[in-house]
Amino acid sequence: MVAPLFEAVPNFSEGKNQAKITRITEAVRAVPGVRVLGLHSDPDHNRSVLTFAGEEDPVLAGAVALARACFSELDLASQAGEHPRMGVLDVLPFVPLRGATMDGAVRLAHRTAEILGSLGFPVFLYGAAATSSHRHALPDLRRAGYEGVATRLDDPLWKPDFGPHALDPRTGAVAVGARPFLVAFNAFLDTSDVEVAIQIARRVRESSGGLRAVRALGFSVGGQAQVSMNLTDLGETPIHVALEAVRSEAAELGTSVESTELVGLAPLAAILDAARFYLGLRELAPDHVLEMRLFEPPDS
Amino acid sequence: MVAPLFEAVPNFSEGKNQAKITRITEAVRAVPGVRVLGLHSDPDHNRSVLTFAGEEDPVLAGAVALARACFSELDLASQAGEHPRMGVLDVLPFVPLRGATMDGAVRLAHRTAEILGSLGFPVFLYGAAATSSHRHALPDLRRAGYEGVATRLDDPLWKPDFGPHALDPRTGAVAVGARPFLVAFNAFLDTSDVEVAIQIARRVRESSGGLRAVRALGFSVGGQAQVSMNLTDLGETPIHVALEAVRSEAAELGTSVESTELVGLAPLAAILDAARFYLGLRELAPDHVLEMRLFEPPDS
Repeated sequence: MVAPLFEAVPNFSEGKNQAKITRITEAVRAVPGVRVLGLHSDPDHNRSVLTFAGEEDPVLAGAVALARACFSELDLASQAGEHPRMGVLDVLPFVPLRGATMDGAVRLAHRTAEILGSLGFPVFLYGAAATSSHRHALPDLRRAGYEGVATRLDDPLWKPDFGPHALDPRTGAVAVGARPFLVAFNAFLDTSDVEVAIQIARRVRESSGGLRAVRALGFSVGGQAQVSMNLTDLGETPIHVALEAVRSEAAELGTSVESTELVGLAPLAAILDAARFYLGLRELAPDHVLEMRLFEPPDS
Repeated sequence: MVAPLFEAVPNFSEGKNQAKITRITEAVRAVPGVRVLGLHSDPDHNRSVLTFAGEEDPVLAGAVALARACFSELDLASQAGEHPRMGVLDVLPFVPLRGATMDGAVRLAHRTAEILGSLGFPVFLYGAAATSSHRHALPDLRRAGYEGVATRLDDPLWKPDFGPHALDPRTGAVAVGARPFLVAFNAFLDTSDVEVAIQIARRVRESSGGLRAVRALGFSVGGQAQVSMNLTDLGETPIHVALEAVRSEAAELGTSVESTELVGLAPLAAILDAARFYLGLRELAPDHVLEMRLFEPPDS
């Protein structure tokens, strides 16, 4: 048995000050067993998204190190007028990777939330880790940002799952959650007509009755119409199912998919799923991939 | 930069005596940096195929350890009447894997051949490592096995590349080569008529004017017609090109491909190639696969 792997994708409230961003990131990188996979800092919204992964305990330690660094480096009170946020460490989702289950990610979220609470930080659980269905969706939880959270801390419906029932205006609160891996997948159409992309997006996305766990918008990118998708649960809708839906809608509208792109990382299982589907393979497991055999621990 | 990886796929002349097979395999496994990926022993033909991989120097050391173990454990003279073989370590091909080139595999083959020669073993180079075009094909080189090799050692056309120009009847000679990764890929047809599979195999394989680097035969497997393929150079003919050719020939003959199977391992690049083709992706590199980022050395 290989140890299950998890990913953490925290959003923290600093996207401008490079020295602070570096110190916060280095605090995570210094944890043995943690692999930092990416950092995206957005100065306009003054936020950063860090991606790191590893086994359960290192990822837990990395998340705690990140929270401590955010507490000591950042001050929410000096950030009035920015993009809505409720804390210096704003959102902390955990994602099950190879060998891990959503139950495992929920447990990791609860363990982390308990520790952050004991550090004096109010913690709200969301996503698959939510303790009540009305707290499942992140937008509902953090509506109106810090001020919104502050006004309803006494409401039993919205009290924190861990930590004090009071907000320190310097650090705020954090939403800790568990969710599936998200894949960003775009289809470029053989047309410059953005209306066609908008129409296809509307037909395939879940919010207007299309495919489950698919968010989609139509854009014009370099003069070419593009259907931009977020696949939020590949177990519900894999990449090839989303693509075949777009291809079929495009054909109905008299155009076709010219090419596609994956933005960021995709899990191997998603690529294998697509290859298995199109090649008609009876079976295709990570175990059949040479490199996975080379890089796995010998006892796998 | 990640260090290039190589695979060795030696065939040695013992497929029955488990104690000997284990001692020979353990000699390779004991070399630091070598990963043993598979062992297939065939008692009927009294041969074993071992697959191991690693960086150049560990694979070289593994090959030398294997040769020494074969010399001390096996005796060709006691094996009269078996499947044709020319030595106790019969064939030793090297395959370039991730980050490696065929030139690198040829160099590894030459380095290994020189050492085996210095150990007193006549060595013939073949495949991409051959020193002359008439010695490229393994079947030509080892025609008639040990006896055939023995009778033509004085022929300048067939003298060994390294080692003595005389055969020890106990150990014989070895063919050391370099070749691309071989993928075994089978297509099951929607028919029980094996003649259809035989006809499709004839149309797609290189030897009868079909696709380059494709060997194919038609079989009946569990009452279902099967086109069984060896793709000997995925750079010439990738999996999806072979499959699309079989699908198209099958359609012409009034049937279709019901399902397919990969036998053994496939390199990640081959799977990504297929996924990229069918998903219409502008780009798909190993770097886009989450697990490759997790398991690669951090400096990659």
